[in-house]
Formats: sequence, structure tokens, C-alpha cells
Amino acid sequence: MGLLTDFYELTMCAAYFDNKKFETATFDLFIRRLPKNRSYFLFIGLEETLGYLQSIKFTEEHLTYLKGQGFKEDFLDYLRHFKFTGEVWAIPEGTIVFPNEPLLRITAPIIEAQLVETFLLNSINFQTMIASKASRVVEAARGKAVIEFGLRREPGIDGGMKVARSSYIAGCKGTSNVLAGLVYNIPVFGTMAHSFIMSYPKEIDAFRAFAKTFPNKSTLLIDTYDNLAGAEKAAIVAKELEAKGVQLDGVRIDSGDLVENSKKVREILDKHNLHSAKIFVSGDLDEYRITELLNAGAPINSFGVGTKMGTSADHPYLDGIYKLCETQSALGDFVPIMKLSKGKITLPGRKQVYRFTNNDGTYQKDVITLANESALGEPLLIKVMEKGKLTYKLPPLDEIKRFAEENLAKLPKKYKVLINAPYYPVEVSQELKKLTDSLKNQITQNEIYHTS
Amino acid sequence: MGLLTDFYELTMCAAYFDNKKFETATFDLFIRRLPKNRSYFLFIGLEETLGYLQSIKFTEEHLTYLKGQGFKEDFLDYLRHFKFTGEVWAIPEGTIVFPNEPLLRITAPIIEAQLVETFLLNSINFQTMIASKASRVVEAARGKAVIEFGLRREPGIDGGMKVARSSYIAGCKGTSNVLAGLVYNIPVFGTMAHSFIMSYPKEIDAFRAFAKTFPNKSTLLIDTYDNLAGAEKAAIVAKELEAKGVQLDGVRIDSGDLVENSKKVREILDKHNLHSAKIFVSGDLDEYRITELLNAGAPINSFGVGTKMGTSADHPYLDGIYKLCETQSALGDFVPIMKLSKGKITLPGRKQVYRFTNNDGTYQKDVITLANESALGEPLLIKVMEKGKLTYKLPPLDEIKRFAEENLAKLPKKYKVLINAPYYPVEVSQELKKLTDSLKNQITQNEIYHTS
Repeated sequence: MGLLTDFYELTMCAAYFDNKKFETATFDLFIRRLPKNRSYFLFIGLEETLGYLQSIKFTEEHLTYLKGQGFKEDFLDYLRHFKFTGEVWAIPEGTIVFPNEPLLRITAPIIEAQLVETFLLNSINFQTMIASKASRVVEAARGKAVIEFGLRREPGIDGGMKVARSSYIAGCKGTSNVLAGLVYNIPVFGTMAHSFIMSYPKEIDAFRAFAKTFPNKSTLLIDTYDNLAGAEKAAIVAKELEAKGVQLDGVRIDSGDLVENSKKVREILDKHNLHSAKIFVSGDLDEYRITELLNAGAPINSFGVGTKMGTSADHPYLDGIYKLCETQSALGDFVPIMKLSKGKITLPGRKQVYRFTNNDGTYQKDVITLANESALGEPLLIKVMEKGKLTYKLPPLDEIKRFAEENLAKLPKKYKVLINAPYYPVEVSQELKKLTDSLKNQITQNEIYHTS
Repeated sequence: MGLLTDFYELTMCAAYFDNKKFETATFDLFIRRLPKNRSYFLFIGLEETLGYLQSIKFTEEHLTYLKGQGFKEDFLDYLRHFKFTGEVWAIPEGTIVFPNEPLLRITAPIIEAQLVETFLLNSINFQTMIASKASRVVEAARGKAVIEFGLRREPGIDGGMKVARSSYIAGCKGTSNVLAGLVYNIPVFGTMAHSFIMSYPKEIDAFRAFAKTFPNKSTLLIDTYDNLAGAEKAAIVAKELEAKGVQLDGVRIDSGDLVENSKKVREILDKHNLHSAKIFVSGDLDEYRITELLNAGAPINSFGVGTKMGTSADHPYLDGIYKLCETQSALGDFVPIMKLSKGKITLPGRKQVYRFTNNDGTYQKDVITLANESALGEPLLIKVMEKGKLTYKLPPLDEIKRFAEENLAKLPKKYKVLINAPYYPVEVSQELKKLTDSLKNQITQNEIYHTS
């Protein structure tokens, strides 16, 4: 994975190397702003990030390629022995976080810290985006099961795997992705597609064939030709199963007016005394649509959510960035650094985030401070790596899922509404504010009014 | 990759197996509709798809997992020896295609054809989406270079690789993704980030350090503190380079008002007689923004386009689907099949797509026909696999890129406008229409009015 990076990370590192710039530096990874209709992020990506930092290296094939790109021998030799040796502080996966809060803080020789930027952002931006979106879908479902169903429209192989993991942490009950089921030990779900129905001369024959093979877990897809006619046929098959002492799991509706169809299908099932048969719906669902369906009283038991969750379709990227916040001077002391680009100002210095809770345990506000300040809240950044070695026990997936659930439960309801949620207060400590202002003046003097 | 599939593919296959359903079937892969503001697709994904079909298998680890999920021994044994043995017809990568046109047509024993659905869709949906988006960005840039720059916000590792490949085929000049450069032999680009500038006590020191290491390819990032002050400093360094007989490549602007800044920066560079120094811009670009910039006369030489192209942000998914269109009866003849779900009707039977051109060689219209009809246009689907073996020479990437360029050149200008492009005519042959109508009546009779 050494080469899975932007070319400029390597040119910068070559320039650092060539100019004998080996000092230690600190970078913050944070997300600049909330997408529309979002009011928090559910942070995911730490496990992959730490795996990468422990294993990043350059093969001879990589070095030959880089030589062809004009890099010099001494730098290539440096890369040949490259290992990440830095210190990493991070917020645990499954934590609710907000804009501008450092999620990862890397202190390492500047070449090492620089080189890892692209991969870290790629990993955290996507997974945090998906988990944040999925937690909204789960919240909208009001306790009814949400299954992640989107592999066919998710971005690539690794993308599909990450969506399954991130959405499971965020509260989904499982996935349709079988490889994710194996790799992450996530429950897998699914029964049949339209093609299965269409492959039989008659719809009811398809239902009977499936129920024969999976009598205990049949959810029959009833909309291939007509939802209501399909429901009547499902009821016939359910009765045939009952005669053998087995209950039909339920039916799936994948098209048409889901409110009207689910109500009419429920009536048909109830008319046949199939009260325990569940209605599972799918097709273009997201948190907005699920809310509409439930508000309209659709008698739906569970939701299969694919494309719009697996691509975070209403906002398919996060503005996660990775910014230098301090470097070590020749004297060995750390000098805070900031960027002034229009609309992209950053917070200087090594930082910590403290979370304050209300009396009932719910989250009240966060304060971003300098790392050496003390505050009364709970510090969110913990040390996870020292000298390139893991100092943190990676929690198993189900523990991360539970932790995310607790975090979401502690976030006051008002921040979890679909639209127009208020801003959760994230303050900047007095000391950090003072540093920011004075540094801003100093840079403005040095870099803007004097150009040489 | 055997398990990278939706669980229901496996339950359906188990039910086919259990019910001794081994007949041959044909599936079409096609995209249902054009996203907003799109008027064509640039088809990508065939190479990966064919690689998958040649190599798909199930390991013992997979089979043990599936056993734990309740699959029976005889089916697992079938999977143990699974190989794809079917026939595949496909449209070559880099072809312009339209909704409802079969892009891939798979004829195989129904279990095999069913099982591969999810992977095929995952591969083609994402890559075709990105290539289609990227071709719009390249068109908007009016011949100025577009570099793909989005790895940090693209969806995962494989997603990032596929964006680099797809956008290169679509006309980008290169990528920032070094691994994609190595794997696909795509030109890589990039020089420095803000952190490089900020790591030096003074901006100009950073410029000098970089220019020392890469005198022949320095594009200096000038917006860390202030674009115009940065441009003045870049001019100083350019003069220092000139004294050594080297020209500065150019400057990069990444924030602020790109029109105003590029004009003022151009003036500064020209004032110093740096007419050959180029202006490279980046930051939230897409086809809409590039059009605005060029319409406003911004003197920009090339564009770094990331997030919005690499996620197809204005429409981050395609409605690609995979539908059964015929099965073989007990008598051995092929029976056309269709789906009637509300708003999701499919075209029955084994099909071909013919493209008709105008006298000047530009594309006029397409006609979807039954496979055994003859038409005057050029058939788009060609046979690429027979009995599970490749019968098609996969073209090298640069050939696919050239082919895409030719295809895009033959698509009349009116279909390449940013918004409100007319629909390209895609007709259905009389014979196919007749079959569709009669099958629709027949299914309505059998499945909707008679429920048992």
C-alpha cells in the first residue's frame, strides 16, 4: 500500500529529504464541515488506519517505478527502509464527533507524517460518511430492522466491504454481502430476486420451490407481476407450509406505492390468519423515505436499504482533511502552525477534545483545547500508537457496534432529527483562541505584507 | 471473490439446485435510466467482469462459512467445483451507450448466470458512472488538461483505483494516484500541499526548497496565506530558476475566487515576463464549475478535479440491473421472459443493439432488436466468452482510451451539453415490440387475474 497515495506526498517527501528536513511534526485529521441535513459524524476508519500505519512499506517494484518517475537514489533508498515510527492519538471508532475536532493526531518525523496523509483520508472519509448516513437511516426506522442491501451499486469491492462494516456498526442488523458476513462476522440476509420468480412458468411454482428448499426462512418476493396477486399466492404457499408445521417468514415488496401496497398486503395476510408473516420492503429507501412510510402508517416490519445508504447519495463525500499544526524547531521546541487560505483556516498546535455531559449523561458540548491544557470533560483522543507500535487493543466489531449505540443514545434527540437539527456546541478554549489570533496576526505580517 | 455477492444469489442458487433446475438461461445487464443532466453513458467495467468470470471460485473457508449459514452438503459440493461455463456477449469498454441497451448478455446454466449478478453490477455500475461523469468534466474543460485528484475522498482503495482508470479512459490526462500510475501505466501528477509550505518558517523558503529538488517540474502552491502575495514570491523564485536556465512550470491556486485570483495571478506572472508559467487550479471543481470559470474568462491552463468527479457527486449511483430475459424449456427451446413490476418492465428475449450513423459518421440512433433479427446498423454486442473461455482479446488501456475518444467525438455535440440535452433516440424493433406486448398480455392473464 506504499504507493496508494497522491503523487505530491512523494514529491514533498523527496523535497523534505533533499533539504534535510527531518524534524518531528504533528498533523491533525479532521472534517471541515457537516454536509447538509447532517448534525454529527459517527467516526469509523481507525482500525484500517492503524493496520496501514503498521504495515506501510515500499517494494522493489514500487521503487523501480518511482525511479522511472525521476526520484533520486538516496531518497529511494530511504523509502526502501521506510517504516512509520510515529505517535498516534485517536478517537475510538464508533464515537460521535463534530467538525474541526481532531479525529487522529499524528506526531512523527515530517516525511513519515506527510506520506501517510492520502491513505488515512481515503479510509476515514468514506467509512465515517457511510456510518454517519447509516445511523440516520437506523434512527428513522424507529427500532425496525434495517438490512444493508447495496453491494451492487456500491463503489467497488473494498467500498462494498466497508459499507457493510460501517453500516453494521451504525446500527444495521446485517448485510446482504456474504463476504462481509464471513470477514466481519456480520449476520447476512436475503432470499430471492425477480429472476428466480421469472425463471418458473408460474410465480406460485417459484414460491413453492423456494419454500421447499428453505421452509424455515422464506421471504417471498411478491411484486414481480403484481403485489396483491403475489400476496394471495404467498398466502396459499404459507398455508401449505402450515400444514407441514412451518410458518412463512414473510413477504418482500420492492416496487410500487409501498404505503398502499404494504397496507393491502397486510390485509391479505391477516385475512388468511398469517399474522406472524412479516412485511419486508426495499427499493430506493433512505432515512427520508422511511420516515414518510412510517408516518403514513405503513405496516412494515423491516427495511432493506441499499444504494442511497451505501453511497450516502444525498451527500456522497466528506470534507475530511489532514493539516500540519506544529513542527519542531532547530532548538527542539514545538512551534504551532496554521493555514490562512480563504475559508480554510486551521487551528494551530497539538490539541485535545473534551466532551462535557449533562446530568442525565447525555452530551452537552465539546471543547477543543491545546493538548497540555486540562479541562473537566472527558478527553476523546487517546494514545493508540507509540514509536510506530500499537499501544491500543483494537476492540472487536460487536464492541464497536455497542459503543456506537451508546454514543448515539447519549446524543440528545434534537440532534438526531432528519433536517434542520441545531448545531451541537463545539467550543475552542480561551488559550487555543488566543494562540490562533496571535499566530494569524503574525503570519499576516510576515507572509502577506512582506513578500520576500 | 466467490462470496462477494448478495446472500440471495446463493439462496436462489441453492433452491435451483435443490429443485433440479439446471436449464440454460439468458440475463441482460443494462442501466435503467439516465441520471439528471446526463445524456449518455461511457461503458466501463468489462475487463474486470471478464477477469471475474474466468476466476470465480469457492474456497474451503467459504464453504465452511456457508455450511454454518444452513446450506446443504450437496449444494456446497456443487459450489466446490463451481466454474463459470457460459457464453458472454458484451459491448466493448469505452463505448457510448444508453438506457435499456444490454451491455452484457450472459447465457449459461441458470445457477451460474444467477450467481455472478452482484459482482457484475458492482463492477459496471461504479466504473461506468465515473467514466460518464469524467467525460463531462473533460468536455467542459474545452481541451485544457484535467487531472484526476480525488483519491483522498474516493470510496475506498479499489474505488480509488477504479476512478483513476475510468477517468483516464474518459479523457483525463492522468491521476494523482501513484499506485494507479504503476498498475495501469497512467501518467501521475502532483507537486505540493499546504503542509509543505507551512512546514517552513517562510513561504518563499518552501518554494525555494521544492525548486531545488525538482527544478524542472515545480508547480508552486500559492494560496496557503494569500494568493497574490504567493504569486509575487513564486515570481521571485521563477527568476532565481531562470538565472540557472530553468523555467518554472507554474503555480497552483486551491481556494478563493478562482476567476479573480487567476486573472490577477496571470497579471503578476506576466508583469515578471513569466508568460510560460502555467496556472493550475483545484478545489471543488466539476463540469459545472469549470464551465463557469472558462465562461468568465479565467486564464487557467489545467484543472485538478477530485471529489466531485471521483464520487460523481451530483448523482452518485447508476440504476444498472441484471434481468432474466429467457430460459430454456424442457423441450430445449428458449422461452422469452419479462418482468412487469410497476415502473420496472423489462424487454424479453435474447437481444442485440444496432447503432446507425449519419452521413458524417456521427451517431444517429440505436435500435434494440431480437438477437436473430438482422438490421443495417453496426451491432454493438460482440461475443467475448464461449464455454467460460475468453474469445476476445482485451485491448490495452490506451487503446480503450482512444476508442472512448472516438466514440465521444462521434456523439453529436447536442448530446454533450451540460444540462437539458435531448434524448438520443433508442428504438425498439417492431418484432421485439410485438413480443413484449404479447408476453405482457399473457403474463397479465396468467399471473394477475388467476392467482393459483
